[in-house]
Amino acid sequence: MNIEICFTPALYPFYAENNDVVIVTDIFRATTTMCMALLKGASAIIPVASEEEAVDYKERGYLVGAERNLLRCEFADFGNSPFEYTPGKVEGKEIVFTTTNGTRALDVAKESKEILIGAFSNLDAVVDESLRLQKEGKILVLCSGWKNRVNIEDMLFAGAFAEKVYSQIDNKVLPDAVSIALDIWKIAKKDPIKYLENTEDYQRMIAHNLGEDAKFCLRQNTLPIVPKYSNSKIRVPK
Amino acid sequence: MNIEICFTPALYPFYAENNDVVIVTDIFRATTTMCMALLKGASAIIPVASEEEAVDYKERGYLVGAERNLLRCEFADFGNSPFEYTPGKVEGKEIVFTTTNGTRALDVAKESKEILIGAFSNLDAVVDESLRLQKEGKILVLCSGWKNRVNIEDMLFAGAFAEKVYSQIDNKVLPDAVSIALDIWKIAKKDPIKYLENTEDYQRMIAHNLGEDAKFCLRQNTLPIVPKYSNSKIRVPK
Repeated sequence: MNIEICFTPALYPFYAENNDVVIVTDIFRATTTMCMALLKGASAIIPVASEEEAVDYKERGYLVGAERNLLRCEFADFGNSPFEYTPGKVEGKEIVFTTTNGTRALDVAKESKEILIGAFSNLDAVVDESLRLQKEGKILVLCSGWKNRVNIEDMLFAGAFAEKVYSQIDNKVLPDAVSIALDIWKIAKKDPIKYLENTEDYQRMIAHNLGEDAKFCLRQNTLPIVPKYSNSKIRVPK
Repeated sequence: MNIEICFTPALYPFYAENNDVVIVTDIFRATTTMCMALLKGASAIIPVASEEEAVDYKERGYLVGAERNLLRCEFADFGNSPFEYTPGKVEGKEIVFTTTNGTRALDVAKESKEILIGAFSNLDAVVDESLRLQKEGKILVLCSGWKNRVNIEDMLFAGAFAEKVYSQIDNKVLPDAVSIALDIWKIAKKDPIKYLENTEDYQRMIAHNLGEDAKFCLRQNTLPIVPKYSNSKIRVPK
């Protein structure tokens, strides 16, 4: 058993193998927000890649969360802030969801054997579930990145994830991407906000007045559930 | 003026802009070997992507360097070790060259305004030349990676390159890939061999008895020339 880390969806074909358990992450903020919506009682999330599809669902009566470049799309009921998804609004509902990067990552991974949603918010739970599910192949952490470029906060999650896994299983020669993410996480983990202060995504968050969202998205184990993506929906198995 | 770093050729479309000065690097060993061959007197290197093209040139009387998965291709005059390219063999000659990863990186970047060959072997010289050439756009370090995956030794070069550039120009919010490469370089730079010891590429080098090649490829400023790629050939401008 080993781990690999794919830093952006564009690299997925070069990392993916048949038997992978894939952990999709988009720390700022899609996968954090998905965990929140499901913990607050949404029955499922239906990720879609385009705004057009989301509008189509909206016209058929669905609740829709839609974000592009950090802003809520005008037609949508929610944007991409975890705090918008309150029990009164989401309980028992299926929510259609599209974001700048996170839903693209789900789309490239959709043929995988198992797809789990990972965030700092469910770190321990998703590590345990990955190890339970994966006996022979590998665990592949798929970072959503920023428009197919590498981003740091997703890499921090991947590093934190790898650190937890390697505390439970034997270590050996690590894949290069895993070594890199582990080393970056070691530098950042004492104070991730301080580490991210001068990075592009965090600056974008601050410029949009989303400092509280950023802080929440970096906190560990606040939403201890493990959503799974299968048959085009993300759900928490009973 | 800014720097960006593209960790593998597969990500190039998401980082490239019209006005880029591109530095192509493949530390183990293609760009190091190109610097060596040109410093030892080769008049030009003709990079080709496929073995078939290289065989074709060979049949037309060219000297050919060809490597796949660290081994010299049977039909070739040279493999990918810098030490093979001695003055007696290469002086005044054009050498056709194909390697597992490095020539692919040159191929994706071939439409760029300027393409320079970078390695630890010519670090200071290539930094100076990049800064001389780039006044308005950005400098893009393109790592060759390993079969479109990320690799560490190319990232170390990119980090060392960025550190040198930022010692000469003003710093600001850094692109995420640059922050990552700088941080990894800071950890590794005291002893790059020790840092790389447990990584995949270095282990592959050792398994093929190429420890001396690896050491040489990590040494700085041993081959202080700046090869340029234009009109399908790599040359050192007079």
